[in-house]
Amino acid sequence: MALVVQKYGGSSVQSAERIKRVAERIVETKRQGHDVVVVVSAMGDTTDDLLQLAADVSPAPHPREMDMLLTAGERISNALVAMAIHALGAEARSFTGSQAGVITTQSHGKAKIIDVTPGRVRTALDEGSIVLVAGFQGVSQDSKDVTTLGRGGSDTTAVALAAALNADVCEIYTDVDGVYSADPRIVPNARKLDNISFEEMLEMAAAGAKVLMLRCVEYARRYNTPIHVRSSYSNKPGTIVSGSMEDIPVEDAILTGVAHDRSEAKVTVVGIPDAPGFAAQVFRAVADAEINIDMVLQNVSKVETGKTDITFTLPRSDGPKAVEYLTKLQDKIGFSQVLYDDHIGKLSLIGAGMRSHPGVTATFCEALANAGVNIELISTSEIRISVLCRDTELDKAVAAVHQAFQLGGDQEAVVYAGSGI
Amino acid sequence: MALVVQKYGGSSVQSAERIKRVAERIVETKRQGHDVVVVVSAMGDTTDDLLQLAADVSPAPHPREMDMLLTAGERISNALVAMAIHALGAEARSFTGSQAGVITTQSHGKAKIIDVTPGRVRTALDEGSIVLVAGFQGVSQDSKDVTTLGRGGSDTTAVALAAALNADVCEIYTDVDGVYSADPRIVPNARKLDNISFEEMLEMAAAGAKVLMLRCVEYARRYNTPIHVRSSYSNKPGTIVSGSMEDIPVEDAILTGVAHDRSEAKVTVVGIPDAPGFAAQVFRAVADAEINIDMVLQNVSKVETGKTDITFTLPRSDGPKAVEYLTKLQDKIGFSQVLYDDHIGKLSLIGAGMRSHPGVTATFCEALANAGVNIELISTSEIRISVLCRDTELDKAVAAVHQAFQLGGDQEAVVYAGSGI
Repeated sequence: MALVVQKYGGSSVQSAERIKRVAERIVETKRQGHDVVVVVSAMGDTTDDLLQLAADVSPAPHPREMDMLLTAGERISNALVAMAIHALGAEARSFTGSQAGVITTQSHGKAKIIDVTPGRVRTALDEGSIVLVAGFQGVSQDSKDVTTLGRGGSDTTAVALAAALNADVCEIYTDVDGVYSADPRIVPNARKLDNISFEEMLEMAAAGAKVLMLRCVEYARRYNTPIHVRSSYSNKPGTIVSGSMEDIPVEDAILTGVAHDRSEAKVTVVGIPDAPGFAAQVFRAVADAEINIDMVLQNVSKVETGKTDITFTLPRSDGPKAVEYLTKLQDKIGFSQVLYDDHIGKLSLIGAGMRSHPGVTATFCEALANAGVNIELISTSEIRISVLCRDTELDKAVAAVHQAFQLGGDQEAVVYAGSGI
Repeated sequence: MALVVQKYGGSSVQSAERIKRVAERIVETKRQGHDVVVVVSAMGDTTDDLLQLAADVSPAPHPREMDMLLTAGERISNALVAMAIHALGAEARSFTGSQAGVITTQSHGKAKIIDVTPGRVRTALDEGSIVLVAGFQGVSQDSKDVTTLGRGGSDTTAVALAAALNADVCEIYTDVDGVYSADPRIVPNARKLDNISFEEMLEMAAAGAKVLMLRCVEYARRYNTPIHVRSSYSNKPGTIVSGSMEDIPVEDAILTGVAHDRSEAKVTVVGIPDAPGFAAQVFRAVADAEINIDMVLQNVSKVETGKTDITFTLPRSDGPKAVEYLTKLQDKIGFSQVLYDDHIGKLSLIGAGMRSHPGVTATFCEALANAGVNIELISTSEIRISVLCRDTELDKAVAAVHQAFQLGGDQEAVVYAGSGI
């Protein structure tokens, strides 16, 4: 008998029919003799509908009240799944994030989990009940206000509960069959991965693979909680995210996949003095605007001017704000210009094998060159190469790299309608 | 400076526009220098929509989960009203029933308030904030589960909070201008009452006047909390429910109004032994079915048989269940027949003046006779006369009695679309 945490996304519970199907799967797991804890996201469009209501009553809804509002969505879906489980003759009890002991920071809309004290969850499990926990939400440690965890919050709730309960596995049900070597909508023969290490999955998520959010993988790695990413529409095994890259024998290490990201923009601060402290001022300005930056590059300065250029990428939605903050500081920091480009795409090749296989970068660049894709910027980590190119050339670039490293499988990947790979 | 509790019903907050209007009224009250606590029902059709979802996933939704589901409705409306208040530049904080300290029994779907410990509400008021509390909901004392208070729950939440906070008044905003001498849709010249005692209001509510629920009036009477029933569409004063009937000088005591009720059915148990314990068996059977009964009548028995008939009224929706329970016990109790009639209407005349003005019953019966209405059953209390008649004759009966006692005013009552008088 194992303790299994299952998480179902919004599309898996978007109608009464789907809720009943999810309930059947949950009850089946329970009848196999396992203890089951389930985390459910809000139904389909509920969150969007609530956001619209908020926008209708206020130009800038108060964050505390926004959290109170949005958490209603998971409350509804979890109660409905619990009812559907009851209708199948099994016991189920739903808990809010607060009731389940999900303690967070005070930061409304993007709270971080501080601790999970699942006393009531454990008691309900011991009494033979299936337990449902509303994802995406918690209660702040100091003020006891309702908080939300922000994007990917329900996945994080599931992993955090799995860690706190010392669960055997955290199953993340989604609308794809697992983690793929590339987006199957771009690369039809993309291969489903059977296993991937935490580090590789982290790099994939950071590089734009949407199947798992970065913070959820970080949480799983920290507590060494295996994640099983699988489809809620089939019983096929999905992808197991577990173990450290360090445990993969060098001989077996391979390249894992190609991720891409269309959501970023690029900012270049031109002509900044190449002396200590100037780059720091740039990034402090961006941090003050509460913007997370992704890639950062500074190339060697031109000797004759003593000036250099710094380029970074950031979420496209934050671009205008970053430019505004930086422009205000132009005279103080003393750079000559801010360039902004929101027509970029990012492509990343990920794999633990990169460390031990020479020539990966060469093959990578050749593949792009042969496909006629111009590389605008290169950045690497130990197990990742990322480049920026024109967004219009991104699909072509992904297919070329995937092909060059022979990452594909024998069969066409299954892509469900509306899948958010 | 006063402490005012305001309650707004579902139709008052059924759209973003109406929410903004409600917010304006709340902020206006605050700016007049008062402390304001607001209880809001779920938006318009939200509760019905959630009930439909529950029915779609389960033939008999689990009561605990039903409460978890339904309480999402008030959470949404309260958060939206708080946002709308913020947008007007005032401070507002919304609390769930649990956060506001509404402690209830464990009885899901029809929990009773045991205690209100509004520590967080008081703190927020002291900090200058307008406080919103989700109506209709609480948390059970023992299991700490989310509960709902059943029909009229939000009114009861408002009155209970007003009592616990020792508020100066509890304003119940509704879609009518106040408590009327009769339903204005039936009696166009029905008069809006300026004042009514708790006892009279109790009798009105028990007799079918829908403007306030019985339990809310009971609560207000017990804690002597004045209720101001008024329209959310105008600034006109409504009806003040306060004070004991005993305080009304006999000379001033008058007849208050005519209430009617179409929601009941009538059960007659025929030929029951007229000896101690048999009636008790009948009512135990009905109580075991968890049915609340309203009027009870037993007339003198026929001497020759030693048998009597017992008639009672009950909610029409519970009728079939009551008949089923009684029929099962026919042989055991030893009655000859159960009659069931769901085409009845109930009419009640209420007023403290009934005690001191002889001839009220005579005038009452004459009025009905002149209107050609046959009385099927009469029951009285100290300040009420109720009769049953055919449901098809109810409107005519109400108008006749209202006219006979000259309860009308000079002007036509204002009736808003969709009003639930």
